[in-house]
Amino acid sequence: MTDLRNKSVDELVALVQSLEKELASEKSKNQMSRPKIAVMTSEVVDSNPYSRLMALKRMGIVEEYEKIRTYSVVVVGVGGVGSVTAEMLTRCGIGKLVLFDYDKVELANMNRLFFQPHQAGLSKVEAASNTLSLINPDVEIECHNYDITSVVNFEGFMNTLKTGGLNGGAVDIVLSCVDNYEARVAVNTACNELNIEWFESGVAENAVSGHIQLLIPGETACFVCAPPLMVASGIDEKSIKKEGVCAASLPTTMGIVAGFLVQNTLKKLLKFGDVTPYLGYIALKDFFPTMTLKPNPTCDDPFCRQRQKEFQARPPKEVQKQVEEVPIVHEDNDWGISLVDETPVEELVEDKNTLLKSQWDRQPSAAPGPSGDSEISTETVSGTDGIEDLMKRLKTLNQS
Amino acid sequence: MTDLRNKSVDELVALVQSLEKELASEKSKNQMSRPKIAVMTSEVVDSNPYSRLMALKRMGIVEEYEKIRTYSVVVVGVGGVGSVTAEMLTRCGIGKLVLFDYDKVELANMNRLFFQPHQAGLSKVEAASNTLSLINPDVEIECHNYDITSVVNFEGFMNTLKTGGLNGGAVDIVLSCVDNYEARVAVNTACNELNIEWFESGVAENAVSGHIQLLIPGETACFVCAPPLMVASGIDEKSIKKEGVCAASLPTTMGIVAGFLVQNTLKKLLKFGDVTPYLGYIALKDFFPTMTLKPNPTCDDPFCRQRQKEFQARPPKEVQKQVEEVPIVHEDNDWGISLVDETPVEELVEDKNTLLKSQWDRQPSAAPGPSGDSEISTETVSGTDGIEDLMKRLKTLNQS
Repeated sequence: MTDLRNKSVDELVALVQSLEKELASEKSKNQMSRPKIAVMTSEVVDSNPYSRLMALKRMGIVEEYEKIRTYSVVVVGVGGVGSVTAEMLTRCGIGKLVLFDYDKVELANMNRLFFQPHQAGLSKVEAASNTLSLINPDVEIECHNYDITSVVNFEGFMNTLKTGGLNGGAVDIVLSCVDNYEARVAVNTACNELNIEWFESGVAENAVSGHIQLLIPGETACFVCAPPLMVASGIDEKSIKKEGVCAASLPTTMGIVAGFLVQNTLKKLLKFGDVTPYLGYIALKDFFPTMTLKPNPTCDDPFCRQRQKEFQARPPKEVQKQVEEVPIVHEDNDWGISLVDETPVEELVEDKNTLLKSQWDRQPSAAPGPSGDSEISTETVSGTDGIEDLMKRLKTLNQS
Repeated sequence: MTDLRNKSVDELVALVQSLEKELASEKSKNQMSRPKIAVMTSEVVDSNPYSRLMALKRMGIVEEYEKIRTYSVVVVGVGGVGSVTAEMLTRCGIGKLVLFDYDKVELANMNRLFFQPHQAGLSKVEAASNTLSLINPDVEIECHNYDITSVVNFEGFMNTLKTGGLNGGAVDIVLSCVDNYEARVAVNTACNELNIEWFESGVAENAVSGHIQLLIPGETACFVCAPPLMVASGIDEKSIKKEGVCAASLPTTMGIVAGFLVQNTLKKLLKFGDVTPYLGYIALKDFFPTMTLKPNPTCDDPFCRQRQKEFQARPPKEVQKQVEEVPIVHEDNDWGISLVDETPVEELVEDKNTLLKSQWDRQPSAAPGPSGDSEISTETVSGTDGIEDLMKRLKTLNQS
């Protein structure tokens, strides 16, 4: 204080100027991104953030990668899975991202990727939007800081899905990355009514399993059609949000589920590879169950039933393949769930069993002798009640 | 300029003080982390970054999660896979991370997770270390900014592996996240000589497949024992670093491979679940091949051969299980590779085939009719030459 007052005006002016310069430099560090890029090119130079993505064309994987800029994707829930999902899409150069969350960043979230300690206290959508804009200023980012399950907010959510696309129309796909039942049902209800395809994702509260599932209104099971899947995924919806219960989480499991989610979204939007209708991840065994789920004709959601009728009424060309070539391997289970496979169900369950066993037995210490069955395989060789049995076994896997 | 000179000394002093305050605030944003935490606890409060990890104990997944602080992990290569690997371990609260790379951050790396545009031009290890320290100041981070394959640097690399552990002894595990053959051989040579377990990882240049592989000197194949695996993984080592060739990459594939790598590292260090000896990821089909690789008794690396002898000389109790319970399903392939399974090879290949087919056929449009085989399944029903055949098929998958 005294020091400053002893300085001459010249000295003070010089000091002010130097401080202003230093401040600008620090500010720029905090807000430094890169200039926007008008057109994606394949040019191979260090300064091109799209060169490695556009190379997918040269490698014969994607025909028109640059089309990614025409798509709008909604991410509901910007937590351990949603934030990484948003970051991956941002780095891939998606056209528009619409984020929904109503939570704040806490230090307790630092065991997952994306958020940093200095963001604690900010709303998740604001913190995410700041970081994502720095990473890729070419992506249009829209944030909604509210709970979609309240009646008034649900209206806003529906409107956003209906008009939030880049062209003012509907968004292209919705990715659900929420951690509770009510929010999943809200996404399901909106997507059934608006006829928008979406992916559901989830991670078990013990942190060592997760899944993604594609839901196409009328064509696949909706979230309300197939309740057992939640159980099979180890997500006990009623306990996960209990007071005082702290679910475990790992950056690995959540990063992998986000990776599966975005990879399948890219495959769907950019039309390459095969989109997997349901992909699970059982971390303790590195086992990846897959299945296809048919809609339930008596689903509680009236829009689901309406979409089913529309789907069935489509010209045969479109529908034929699904109807004729996908045998229902186990017709009499309660939820109309079918595994897409050409083998009869008993054989299929045996196959799955062999697969499970070979996964379980890869570790030398767990390998059964030539005569003995391992504990798990004994338990699972029931083979008669198809899906229910598989579900039970998945549940056991999740809990083991 | 003129404006400043018109101000009074009082005004200038006030301006200097206000600028100093603002500068301190901006600087703190750039360097803001959280206070260090002396002891990991399970306390469920928003301010505890370890609560969701310590919850793994209550969930019955990990017995002593806090032991993570006693481990030192080396990450060689801080690119698309290595940087995410380092971030996951940092967020998990690993004791010490030792990073090796000699590359600089470029905007062309922005299609992968972790680095941000404002870091372009910094060395990867410096940029990574800055970010990781902000994320978790409890982790000890050591950086080495050099190419481990040069003769003089290789000595330094060896010394770091030998003495870089938290207790001044050897590090606990090495994770290879490099993108070239020479660096992999360097890691292999060092780990064989020092008898250190390591994971190798890789992503194909077409960005849609990858793998991780555990290498235990003397017990599993070393990197030099099993060259065909590189081919099977779609990594054409000679072409990947060609001038003018720009490999494709995706944040999804690299994030998933990093997730598999860290998940299996956690399983190994914290003793939970089953560590997978080889786990592949074929993104276009969501197919995850696994296998176990036995060492080659005539391996070119003398330290590999020495470790094999030591392993075979171990007391029967330790070795018995591996030797007796892991049948070599195909003894006469050139590389001593075996799949751990209880079924004979023909049956095994049929099983794998069924698995492959069920994966391929999940998409309704690709499902073969009841009489016809799909193109791919026809190609793969050879069934007599075991591993070589599987390798070929993997290669085909990678290229498709």
